[in-house]
Amino acid sequence: MLRTHTCGELNKKHINSEVTLSGWVNSRRDHGELIFIDIRDTYGLTQLVFDPKQNRAVHEKAHELKSEYVIQAKGVVRERPEGTENPKLPTGGVEILVKALDILNTSVTPPFELDDNLSLSDEIRLKYRYVDLRRPCMQKNIRIRHKINSVIRGFLEEKNFVEIETPFLTRSTPEGARDYLVPSRLNAGKFYALPQSPQLFKQILMVSGFDRYFQIVRCFRDEDLRKDRQPEFTQLDMEMSFVEEEDIFSVSEGLMKSIFKNVMGINIVTPFQRLKYKDAMERFGTDKPDTRFAMEIVNLSGILKDTKFNVFKNSLKKGGMIYAINAKGNAKVSHSKLDGLIGRAKECGAGGLAYFKCENGALTSNIDKFFDRSELDAIKEAAICEDGDLMLIVAEKRALALDVLATLRTEIARETKLIDDKKISLLWVTDFPLFKYNEEEKRWESEHHPFTACSEDDAKLLSGSDLGAIRARSYDLVINGTEIASGSIRIHDRRLQEKIFKVIGLDEKEAHRRFGFLIEAFKHGAPPHGGIAFGLDRFATIFTGSGTIRDVIAFPKTQKAVCPMTNAPSDVDGKQLKELHIRKTE
Amino acid sequence: MLRTHTCGELNKKHINSEVTLSGWVNSRRDHGELIFIDIRDTYGLTQLVFDPKQNRAVHEKAHELKSEYVIQAKGVVRERPEGTENPKLPTGGVEILVKALDILNTSVTPPFELDDNLSLSDEIRLKYRYVDLRRPCMQKNIRIRHKINSVIRGFLEEKNFVEIETPFLTRSTPEGARDYLVPSRLNAGKFYALPQSPQLFKQILMVSGFDRYFQIVRCFRDEDLRKDRQPEFTQLDMEMSFVEEEDIFSVSEGLMKSIFKNVMGINIVTPFQRLKYKDAMERFGTDKPDTRFAMEIVNLSGILKDTKFNVFKNSLKKGGMIYAINAKGNAKVSHSKLDGLIGRAKECGAGGLAYFKCENGALTSNIDKFFDRSELDAIKEAAICEDGDLMLIVAEKRALALDVLATLRTEIARETKLIDDKKISLLWVTDFPLFKYNEEEKRWESEHHPFTACSEDDAKLLSGSDLGAIRARSYDLVINGTEIASGSIRIHDRRLQEKIFKVIGLDEKEAHRRFGFLIEAFKHGAPPHGGIAFGLDRFATIFTGSGTIRDVIAFPKTQKAVCPMTNAPSDVDGKQLKELHIRKTE
Repeated sequence: MLRTHTCGELNKKHINSEVTLSGWVNSRRDHGELIFIDIRDTYGLTQLVFDPKQNRAVHEKAHELKSEYVIQAKGVVRERPEGTENPKLPTGGVEILVKALDILNTSVTPPFELDDNLSLSDEIRLKYRYVDLRRPCMQKNIRIRHKINSVIRGFLEEKNFVEIETPFLTRSTPEGARDYLVPSRLNAGKFYALPQSPQLFKQILMVSGFDRYFQIVRCFRDEDLRKDRQPEFTQLDMEMSFVEEEDIFSVSEGLMKSIFKNVMGINIVTPFQRLKYKDAMERFGTDKPDTRFAMEIVNLSGILKDTKFNVFKNSLKKGGMIYAINAKGNAKVSHSKLDGLIGRAKECGAGGLAYFKCENGALTSNIDKFFDRSELDAIKEAAICEDGDLMLIVAEKRALALDVLATLRTEIARETKLIDDKKISLLWVTDFPLFKYNEEEKRWESEHHPFTACSEDDAKLLSGSDLGAIRARSYDLVINGTEIASGSIRIHDRRLQEKIFKVIGLDEKEAHRRFGFLIEAFKHGAPPHGGIAFGLDRFATIFTGSGTIRDVIAFPKTQKAVCPMTNAPSDVDGKQLKELHIRKTE
Repeated sequence: MLRTHTCGELNKKHINSEVTLSGWVNSRRDHGELIFIDIRDTYGLTQLVFDPKQNRAVHEKAHELKSEYVIQAKGVVRERPEGTENPKLPTGGVEILVKALDILNTSVTPPFELDDNLSLSDEIRLKYRYVDLRRPCMQKNIRIRHKINSVIRGFLEEKNFVEIETPFLTRSTPEGARDYLVPSRLNAGKFYALPQSPQLFKQILMVSGFDRYFQIVRCFRDEDLRKDRQPEFTQLDMEMSFVEEEDIFSVSEGLMKSIFKNVMGINIVTPFQRLKYKDAMERFGTDKPDTRFAMEIVNLSGILKDTKFNVFKNSLKKGGMIYAINAKGNAKVSHSKLDGLIGRAKECGAGGLAYFKCENGALTSNIDKFFDRSELDAIKEAAICEDGDLMLIVAEKRALALDVLATLRTEIARETKLIDDKKISLLWVTDFPLFKYNEEEKRWESEHHPFTACSEDDAKLLSGSDLGAIRARSYDLVINGTEIASGSIRIHDRRLQEKIFKVIGLDEKEAHRRFGFLIEAFKHGAPPHGGIAFGLDRFATIFTGSGTIRDVIAFPKTQKAVCPMTNAPSDVDGKQLKELHIRKTE
């Protein structure tokens, strides 16, 4: 037996017991004749004492010990001498007087310290991931992630959800992101695709009558990796039959409540706040607003419809809008900060950024001479400006103006510590548009995916030209400005599904080639159904307070989609490629 | 709200309640003026009654209903008239007098009946899998599978195991089976591989200090599909640090006990029986014996060392062996049956099959004249032959002789109903050889995989020539003759690991190219560790009493690795291949 106890287990109740511990040498202190070793495993630290007066040979052997050696120590638990207790450790009241020592494995000097506060390149951390994962924060992250999954499963099982595995080797149905492809050896010239999500399979499971499905499942997207994206990511995938939006909201809110309670010990309030997409955009400039703070966007286009300020006037003339935010209390911002904000607005694509400071009851600015008193008063009133406030104004095409102000809003809030880190804002954003127009390809495409149902009131618009006005029965769940779940009520009528395919430019033949099996399934008695999917990597990132999803994934890839530890992807034998009926083109 | 109750929920307590049910039309009976519909969902069946006297319009609409239509019915629960109750159904005491009916979706005529006792081709079942999965046995299988996973997770979490996700896009390290490859778009000419198992990652996790890891995880092998193999399969993967065989056995036995208890309601006895590989082969001719019955193999080579029977004599001279089984009570077997057994032995590769019947206290046969009375008596005694028994004897090279008799042993037991279906035999097979000789490639290869530790007593043999005698610290778990788990204590010493790579013909450069990261990890303080992996598809097959793993997988592939529903694998756009830097060769 390699151990009788773990390194986090012993306390004063064990005094005088004979024990065997195994673990890593966490630290060594030589103190006069005595050698102290903190032995570590994932459960904790325990102090070992080597006393030459008690056992010369073992003490001699302890001289060999270095950081990260793997050892087995046998000895007797004793109380630590008064004044040497460590109240921070559960094992801090005791130590082990070692009688026998085995070095189970040696270690070279670790490439970096096992310290939570290291700033290291990702490259090094990922190359030596086995060392990096020993750091307490990483051990904690991975365990919290496990706990989240465990709570999710417990909650959903209790609600009669059945976890069902769907295939990884499936059919390529590119829509949105690129598929990862897998050449088939047994079917020359054909390819499987790794799923971007189990969307179609979960819908088929509803047609199969499974009623309530979930799966914690890996998904794959071959995208150019932006910050905090991974080629493979994990999703909590859910689908329910005979439901409407309220049913999905209710299960999701119960689930969130259970996770916050059981993982974080936090009671959150349900039901969550709800915002229609249109309002979210108009008030926060984004469909995933952080509602822990206000600083809402104000529409000044009406007030300034007759503005004499040329920049604004020209913008309005070109169909643009004038939007503002009130950065409360920031009137005294330095010139360089203000220049920084203007620079940031330009980086985001704005031509410029106008501002007003509110001082002595009036708005002042380098451009105030272009505005009537009545205009200034109206602006002040609309934005509820008080002395000391700073108004930031963008006049651009609507989408751009909102986007710029959404960015400034968040950055200012962060910088001026407007955000209470302890606050949790959970928000449903609903009524997204069903379609968006792809200017490049001159066609309408699905905002969410083509299986999303539209609002019953808007169904009549499907035959018209105002496709952008059709509201989808879709919803996102946003935590503190991060989208962590997305879903919709699905289409279950094959005629409607065929119509949607047509709208997004799939002719009947192409629609049937790609999605024929779904249409076919819908002919066989498809129930009304809907679902939602949670991005668990981001979720765990929020719960662990990590800066990046790479800190909650055991073996993530770099921005180049490479694993520095295994060097995947790698060269393969020509024989392998030949068997797969492919060859490299460069 | 689409339903107030499920179709399995209502009983006499609900009488006079207004309810709404949604589900499928399971059956329709027109009975005089009344129409009876059994409405079905995954939870059960409920009887709907349409009475023209109560509601003519709704009754009229009910005439449209056909099998598998999806409907919503509102009405009042009432007691069924006496004599019409169905005690087999939990809802069989009540029915619903329908007041409002909505047809939520129609259905074409199903391609087959939703009956458990259908014999259909796999092709048809898989093409219409959404219909096939509605059959009660399939609903049950998928739910039992979920339950097994749930019990596994509960048990392991309680034992401090942490579920950690490992990558699907990883490095190709072909060993044994072929890898599925995934071309990398961002790294031209390089390929990921889908994991055959998370073996190296779980070992790395032990080096990371995670101590007790598990994962229910998909694995991939691009093999020519034999009966009951799938390109992707699900494995319960486990690994533990600071353990020896007994620790793995103990956790695994507790796990099995918990699954049998919680899923089947069966108490199984621990510890399980154990057999060394050598003994399993010698006594049962296989490393996965079904020990629910005896009929053990008897070695007659010693008794017959001076045999005058030429067939046996020549075989012994060529280094062969003479083995027998006693098919108890089968002496009266017909000539044609006996010919059948001989034919089967030949199919398995034997030159022939000798037999003796035991009658009137003596062995008789068409070849008995070649044997001394003392030989016959010794055979009779060795095989504990009694009147009415049938001895079957094979004289061949050892491996072939054992294999032939193992096959006959199982087939005779099945045919003569020797096997008690209710009996559960759980068996550890241990001490496998570390290496086997590959005659074709003229080299030694790993019996299990090259990360398996060898018995400490045998380590000295690694430098010798008798490599076949080295025992591995590996173990298989066998249920009723089916291997359902396999594992080993791993190597954690890099020098030993390098030596093993050398023995199996990987030179240092190649070993480092493929497995350098493991060797590197072992330099950084690798603990002793070991683990086991359970094949959950087979496991679920046994638990559900299914004939094939395809009946416990929601969307399996055919023998050609094709999904008849989605038609995966499929053609892909040339543009996709171009981006992946590959092209098809045929």
